[in-house]
Amino acid sequence: MAKSPLTPQSIDFPSWYQDIVAKAELADNGPVRGTMVIRPYGYAIWERMQAEMDTRIKAAGVSNAYFPLLIPESYLRREAEHVEGFSPELAVVTHGGGKQLEEPVVVRPTSETIINSYFAKWIQSYRDLPLLINQWANVVRWELRPRLFLRTTEFLWQEGHTAHASENDARNFALQILADVYTDVMVNVLAIPILSGRKTDNERFAGATTTWTCEAMMRDGKALQMGTSHELGQNFARAFDITYLDESGTQSYVWQTSWGASTRLMGALVMVHGDDDGLRLPPRLAPVQVVVILARADDGAGDAAATLADELRSSGLRVELDARTDTSFGRRVVDWELKGVPLRIEVGPRDLAEGTVMVARRDTGTKTSVALPGVLAAVREALDAIHTALLDEAVALRTSHTVEVATLEEAEEAAATGFAVMPMAVLGDDGEARLNRAGISVRCIQSADGGLPGPDDDAAAVAAQRAVVGRAY
Amino acid sequence: MAKSPLTPQSIDFPSWYQDIVAKAELADNGPVRGTMVIRPYGYAIWERMQAEMDTRIKAAGVSNAYFPLLIPESYLRREAEHVEGFSPELAVVTHGGGKQLEEPVVVRPTSETIINSYFAKWIQSYRDLPLLINQWANVVRWELRPRLFLRTTEFLWQEGHTAHASENDARNFALQILADVYTDVMVNVLAIPILSGRKTDNERFAGATTTWTCEAMMRDGKALQMGTSHELGQNFARAFDITYLDESGTQSYVWQTSWGASTRLMGALVMVHGDDDGLRLPPRLAPVQVVVILARADDGAGDAAATLADELRSSGLRVELDARTDTSFGRRVVDWELKGVPLRIEVGPRDLAEGTVMVARRDTGTKTSVALPGVLAAVREALDAIHTALLDEAVALRTSHTVEVATLEEAEEAAATGFAVMPMAVLGDDGEARLNRAGISVRCIQSADGGLPGPDDDAAAVAAQRAVVGRAY
Repeated sequence: MAKSPLTPQSIDFPSWYQDIVAKAELADNGPVRGTMVIRPYGYAIWERMQAEMDTRIKAAGVSNAYFPLLIPESYLRREAEHVEGFSPELAVVTHGGGKQLEEPVVVRPTSETIINSYFAKWIQSYRDLPLLINQWANVVRWELRPRLFLRTTEFLWQEGHTAHASENDARNFALQILADVYTDVMVNVLAIPILSGRKTDNERFAGATTTWTCEAMMRDGKALQMGTSHELGQNFARAFDITYLDESGTQSYVWQTSWGASTRLMGALVMVHGDDDGLRLPPRLAPVQVVVILARADDGAGDAAATLADELRSSGLRVELDARTDTSFGRRVVDWELKGVPLRIEVGPRDLAEGTVMVARRDTGTKTSVALPGVLAAVREALDAIHTALLDEAVALRTSHTVEVATLEEAEEAAATGFAVMPMAVLGDDGEARLNRAGISVRCIQSADGGLPGPDDDAAAVAAQRAVVGRAY
Repeated sequence: MAKSPLTPQSIDFPSWYQDIVAKAELADNGPVRGTMVIRPYGYAIWERMQAEMDTRIKAAGVSNAYFPLLIPESYLRREAEHVEGFSPELAVVTHGGGKQLEEPVVVRPTSETIINSYFAKWIQSYRDLPLLINQWANVVRWELRPRLFLRTTEFLWQEGHTAHASENDARNFALQILADVYTDVMVNVLAIPILSGRKTDNERFAGATTTWTCEAMMRDGKALQMGTSHELGQNFARAFDITYLDESGTQSYVWQTSWGASTRLMGALVMVHGDDDGLRLPPRLAPVQVVVILARADDGAGDAAATLADELRSSGLRVELDARTDTSFGRRVVDWELKGVPLRIEVGPRDLAEGTVMVARRDTGTKTSVALPGVLAAVREALDAIHTALLDEAVALRTSHTVEVATLEEAEEAAATGFAVMPMAVLGDDGEARLNRAGISVRCIQSADGGLPGPDDDAAAVAAQRAVVGRAY
């Protein structure tokens, strides 16, 4: 069998990542530093992520819309923290239509400012609330240390922006998105276990009052922020004068949220599930769930393979038929493993003579001979099993690389290979700065039971909150 | 009944257009001149157009991908005609990450240059052909006389880019997209009749050898270019050195196409079907095909309306229930008419007592009393009838506003209210320039029978070709 073209993870994880992104044809570097070409196979995976998120976003009552790419520079300056956070990353258009522009415009790094300038026009009374908007868009943030999918100057994402009548409504909605959209897709589609919690003030989105996050552990023990949902309080409402007349006739500022998840998720997918042979795609996400691969075309095997592929397809599965028998079988197997297709069905004349095909799982490498009438049931069962196995494996890795610590020294040591969890009292007032200097960040703050800390937590509950820290992408 | 808030078409068509885009909440002007906010209802219609095109693009064997927004300025200069055509419209980024850039980058006006720089890397042998790529993206072309959807500085579109082994393969593919994607969606989903043909050299895409186009007539007699499919010959292959090794071992340049359709289609939809009461959406496109509108909530009418809406929904129709009885019935009817929902089902206690509901067609205004058990069948029949009626009406308008002419003088006169069709001999060598000076352009060149002129047309067929001319958006 042909050899995997990847650097082994254990030798050099960053090289393994670069190799797999290139060899599985997920993405390529763009000519402008930090930009990215998402190749067809990578884009097909992203389209599936989009579809899964979009369905859930709409189910939450949110409508899609589209706001301009180009934002007057002055808009960003209206919210002080926001402009301070984003200024260093801006791409600025100074010339348009052959002339220097009177006011430079920025390419959106995020759209709070421009969207909220419209919310101010659209919202008049409590009847207009909640206003729930999402857009799928590209954004640009100049990136000095780019890495494909993880940190790119341009990336694709969805950004939700909402306005509510009360702080409580806004908080509940921010948390609803965190649970019903992000966590649900990440765990139940991407098979990636996540930790949810609150960001520290230091890690909070520029302009937010609270940032909620989903964090996952990669196979090298580092953290990746998977998606964030922000409570904006009334910061942008004041900056853009977004007020409404409530039922009692009083004019009030709205309470807002914003939330986003991006093509970074592609990086997480690679680094949570990938192994030395390539990607391992979770079945509910995979653009191709099953590849039916024809070993040799003799004795009607070609027809049998095509018929089998059609049968599986018509039951709603995403199936590809590989009948390229002019390429060696071994080489094709290596390629499908590289691409992470969850199940491979090998169809050859010898097995067919016995009325069987070989079903191979990508995650475990297990091969099982299955009688033809039982293939559909075996495939369905195997796909479910693969989802669970990938999720379990990722949970097990995270568990074995997470240490409860009692001092900052122990945290630094634990963070060399994974996460450290400590009581907030151990982090103390300047523990975060100290960890930052060691290349470690606070990923999230959780309640004592690993749940979300609530605004109504009593003193004891607050005292029992814990910080999850680690190195991060 | 409440009055339509629109300027009548007959009084002032451009004002009517502005009014309907605003009042039906399709779009709004952005803060940077020429940019556009696509509001949720407008975006829902665009999402439906995208879905219909995307399915057909994929059925043609094309894969979606994504290429960077930012292109080095030098890339555009590699194809002489291309840079000449697009230079005046470019938005230029000169600063990124707080610094002046060494080489300015442009915001893509279209992606031939950047995509073909990757084709050069990806294509090695005849086995890599055809390479069929599409992307859904935003593009920026600085616009001096912007109009929402029709001419905007930023617009959304799909752009397809393909490479083939022979000129014939490329031409066939360009024409396949014109027929199976654009024409099919425009006629069979948007209910917009189109004329297909070739552009003159003057109107050709900058960098193409041939541009094929779909043209429609708006209700004011003006033309709108709905989508174009270009043969690029080997122009970009030479500029970006895209070669392949053919089966005989010879290195050859590929033959290419590109093709695009954009949010301009939204403008066409408005101007082909809209009337003085608002939009009239073709049923296969409409995000809401049927609105079930509760007149009064008495005597169980509320439950009956909800049940009916659920029934229709579960049969696969896109249905909205309007139970906002705190707003006057007449006002809600005006609003749904403005939004162009094809069918309205009015549910009220009096009709219900008779076991009936009222079914009203948006296109004709016809109202029919239908017994409850027959509603689904009546709705399906009416939706089909509305598609046909809208298409027929648009064909009739175009027919009555198209004149066969024998001189340029007659063409100028006819183009004041519609299209003029003339033999190419009448257009002659400088007829196009003369018409252009009068604000008239050649929309397309067709064969004598109204079909596409072919490359193999003999002298007689070429002599019999005709030009369709008109004023255009």
